[in-house]
Amino acid sequence: MTDLAPLPPAIILVEPQMGENIGAAARVMLNFGLKDLRIVNPRDGWPNPKAIDMAKGAISVLESAKIYNCITNAIDDIHYVYATTARPREMVKPVISARKCGEDMFLAFKSAQQSALLFGRERSGLTNDEISYADAITIIPVFHEYTSLNIAQAVSILSYEWFVAQDSSPDYEVDFGNAAPAPKADIVRFFEHLEFELDNNGFFKTNTIRPKMVRNIRNMFVRAALTDQDVRTLRGIISSLSQKSAKDV
Amino acid sequence: MTDLAPLPPAIILVEPQMGENIGAAARVMLNFGLKDLRIVNPRDGWPNPKAIDMAKGAISVLESAKIYNCITNAIDDIHYVYATTARPREMVKPVISARKCGEDMFLAFKSAQQSALLFGRERSGLTNDEISYADAITIIPVFHEYTSLNIAQAVSILSYEWFVAQDSSPDYEVDFGNAAPAPKADIVRFFEHLEFELDNNGFFKTNTIRPKMVRNIRNMFVRAALTDQDVRTLRGIISSLSQKSAKDV
Repeated sequence: MTDLAPLPPAIILVEPQMGENIGAAARVMLNFGLKDLRIVNPRDGWPNPKAIDMAKGAISVLESAKIYNCITNAIDDIHYVYATTARPREMVKPVISARKCGEDMFLAFKSAQQSALLFGRERSGLTNDEISYADAITIIPVFHEYTSLNIAQAVSILSYEWFVAQDSSPDYEVDFGNAAPAPKADIVRFFEHLEFELDNNGFFKTNTIRPKMVRNIRNMFVRAALTDQDVRTLRGIISSLSQKSAKDV
Repeated sequence: MTDLAPLPPAIILVEPQMGENIGAAARVMLNFGLKDLRIVNPRDGWPNPKAIDMAKGAISVLESAKIYNCITNAIDDIHYVYATTARPREMVKPVISARKCGEDMFLAFKSAQQSALLFGRERSGLTNDEISYADAITIIPVFHEYTSLNIAQAVSILSYEWFVAQDSSPDYEVDFGNAAPAPKADIVRFFEHLEFELDNNGFFKTNTIRPKMVRNIRNMFVRAALTDQDVRTLRGIISSLSQKSAKDV
């Protein structure tokens, strides 16, 4: 047990070259609740005006970023280090999916242990020596025809996986707002109304085909998961159309 | 049944404002195997030099992009439409997670039905009228303190979810390369070697503490999932250190 508040993962950019990428990474970090940005030897020094331009509403992440001159200092207070690479290296080390990485970082978080994600240079990634400090390698799966993933996009995917791991939003829901799912009594009366008017208008060409067509029509409207307001609207449509066709006759 | 080859999802950008975003979206689309880019009324016309600058190796996606003057033309040949929005709208429509959206698009793909993801304007998103054509709304969960997600990042997350849904990479694996997990016989002999030298050097201060410490040391090395080469290296380390300490005495 520890009395420290759990810390979300840190993002460590190792020798990033483009200020634009640092700024875009900072922006998307904050989108997904990450604020601890660490930069090892930024090529163009620090602060970087191009980073500031790209960070938009996430300037605070850049302002509180910590600059290091070596990777070991940057990971000093970290419990789990994940190295992001474009391909496996010749190292005996677990290789985990981005999804599992997000889940593992959340498990660590719940135990008040901080994780960090290492991202390498735009051109050449992380060295094998840098990767040797990592608990695991994590790889974002990409399409074989074009595997060059922008570094801010890589930060985005892994930050997103962290956020999703700790997010409790449902996978599926329907917001009915002021409406409500129609009670089945309303649905049945709607079917009776519709089928009565269709019979009136000679919609069913033969009696043999009628039962199957009626079932298909009912299934179609049941699939629409009608609200009480929808049923009133549909009954209005039937009345309107059947009046019109009555006049036409 | 259909004899058409299944088509991966289309990305439809509705009235995008910044060429840079179109180019970044094209790049990350191709990273995740998507090539069908459709653009409704791009603000700055088409082609767009800023889009080309940002697309890097994904110029082909821009070159084959189709331009439309209204959303209904853009979705004409699509079976399922997912509207991306930053927040739920006052509409009775399913709201699904980005993850479920990726899974659902893959289910459609396997049935040779094409899905499309709608992305709205940078400033104002999609109109409720545009959303009314969509089968579902999909929302990327974001941190409440900074919810403004760049449109190319939103394209990235949903394209990634599509790619992961159809990707069969394992969540966890260890690449042993030329090495192999050490057989337990090697591990046991390593333990015997280590414990013998520790006894020789008086490492265990008392006999009562020895059994528990021995178990902890064994557990530590078992957790490391040693390879056959690791065991040889460790035995060399023990020999080296114990020679040294023997000389010191």
